Amino acid sequence: MARNEKHIIGIDLGATNIKFGLLYKGKIISKKSLPTRDFPSRENLIFALGQTIEEILSEANVPKKNVLGIGIGLPGPIDSLKGIVHYFPNIPGWRNVRLRDILKKRTSLPVFIDNDANLMALAEARIGSAKGKTNVVGITLGTGVGGGIIVQGKLYRGSSLTAGEIGHIPLNESGPKCPCGGTACLERYVGNSRILDQAKKSFGETISLEELSRMSLSGNKAARKIWENAAQHLGIALSGVVNFFNPDTIVIGGGVANAGEIIFATVRKVIRARSMPTSARAVRIVKAKLGNDAGMIGAGLLVKEELHKR
Amino acid sequence: MARNEKHIIGIDLGATNIKFGLLYKGKIISKKSLPTRDFPSRENLIFALGQTIEEILSEANVPKKNVLGIGIGLPGPIDSLKGIVHYFPNIPGWRNVRLRDILKKRTSLPVFIDNDANLMALAEARIGSAKGKTNVVGITLGTGVGGGIIVQGKLYRGSSLTAGEIGHIPLNESGPKCPCGGTACLERYVGNSRILDQAKKSFGETISLEELSRMSLSGNKAARKIWENAAQHLGIALSGVVNFFNPDTIVIGGGVANAGEIIFATVRKVIRARSMPTSARAVRIVKAKLGNDAGMIGAGLLVKEELHKR
Repeated sequence: MARNEKHIIGIDLGATNIKFGLLYKGKIISKKSLPTRDFPSRENLIFALGQTIEEILSEANVPKKNVLGIGIGLPGPIDSLKGIVHYFPNIPGWRNVRLRDILKKRTSLPVFIDNDANLMALAEARIGSAKGKTNVVGITLGTGVGGGIIVQGKLYRGSSLTAGEIGHIPLNESGPKCPCGGTACLERYVGNSRILDQAKKSFGETISLEELSRMSLSGNKAARKIWENAAQHLGIALSGVVNFFNPDTIVIGGGVANAGEIIFATVRKVIRARSMPTSARAVRIVKAKLGNDAGMIGAGLLVKEELHKR
Repeated sequence: MARNEKHIIGIDLGATNIKFGLLYKGKIISKKSLPTRDFPSRENLIFALGQTIEEILSEANVPKKNVLGIGIGLPGPIDSLKGIVHYFPNIPGWRNVRLRDILKKRTSLPVFIDNDANLMALAEARIGSAKGKTNVVGITLGTGVGGGIIVQGKLYRGSSLTAGEIGHIPLNESGPKCPCGGTACLERYVGNSRILDQAKKSFGETISLEELSRMSLSGNKAARKIWENAAQHLGIALSGVVNFFNPDTIVIGGGVANAGEIIFATVRKVIRARSMPTSARAVRIVKAKLGNDAGMIGAGLLVKEELHKR
């Protein structure tokens, strides 16, 4: 008997790790992770992608005819229609790379690529904490601050496929320059490096984000204050998003979201205080449910939804 | 022979004037305008709407069976699905008014209502300077700063039908309080009253916006500076909209837009300087084409598109 459901490979390529998931019926049945820095050149990295895909399939005894396709989430602006990586802000050596076609040729499988925050938003809107919601904003807090937008239940990519850059909404008219070219972008206020700087200033030594989260959760006031500050900045940017986009759900994920309820309580308070009442009442601010798996799951969903379109 | 096309009445109810247009094949074939302040109570105003609709039809010899419906653009948050006016920031006495049902009963015609800036965006996207464009932001600069969003060619209203409030995107984290409840909203920097205040400060006397526009167009540096300042604020807010929403077109209309090229040149310059390059290249910033008629034309289009959905 032929199976109705095929396997999918979902890949989340980050600046730190490349995570591979073999998905079956929407669930990850096996995983692999490689440190991104092990592959110093673009060629190395692309070769490793192709090889690891083959390994995963052969280890799981899945023949290629039972594979629907490969989806990849990538940390930068992507032309998802043409399958091109414009560039990666945090991985050098990539500029206008036709990654989809290269991997399609290498694997003889359908390949789809998209921005990682788009895929996080897609995953959370399909099976995560925004499941079944209509107009959703997904935010990933990390070294960078990424975002994805769901409009009327579908991923909205914008006119040059680069929508959702919440991290680059200006928080003030003047302020710190941002590597994106902008000024006073949200990312400059809530990105990991900014939080680490503040922790170092407060405690006189380098403290990891995980440690800072633990300290805050166990009641350290200075640690709590740092997270509260970051959430205040985030809430102000989101109060504009709420007035402009009027979403039903904002899903917040990424490392910073692990600092716990202080982040969410503060963001909710700021939106209640600053957004227009009708829109503020319409939106729920929730924590991402899929955690580190969101990218792989979203990449898997991308394959399904893109093939379904045809 | 029966006609294929029916007449539509498009109404643009503003805080200053109520404009009525009789539309045929998308064009205004007759107009009427009444000063809003002539109707001190809600009841007076609704009565006048019903009466003027009847007058227009009888003067044009159009029997009701040849009328497709009535569309009304309104200056405040509207529940366009239920046909309810939540309230008007600048016209007292309206709270949760079932305007659609009241006028439907009075006129025995289909009635549709929506926010005026939504209808301006719709009109510009259908037959104005964003004709045929896909992802459009329409902005009306006036006493208030309104906005409407077109996504994939369709009016996007958001989860509580209150999307598009560009005037209430915060420009700074702290700043002047806004009547909407927010802080440092764009409207507080570029609304008419702010510009009039600056003109009074610069010239030591009260100057109308029309006069200030004329002075700027004929080379007065102080006048030019005031418009340039306003456009700088607007451009910064829009640089965030470009990064978040990645539109192909931003249409700017309303009185302030009449100050001419200084507004558009400055907004374009700020977006080029501050937005992310791919998104900045994808967007055109254009002047609204339909001017004072946009509201009436948009209201007419609303009737057509809503009836077409059924």
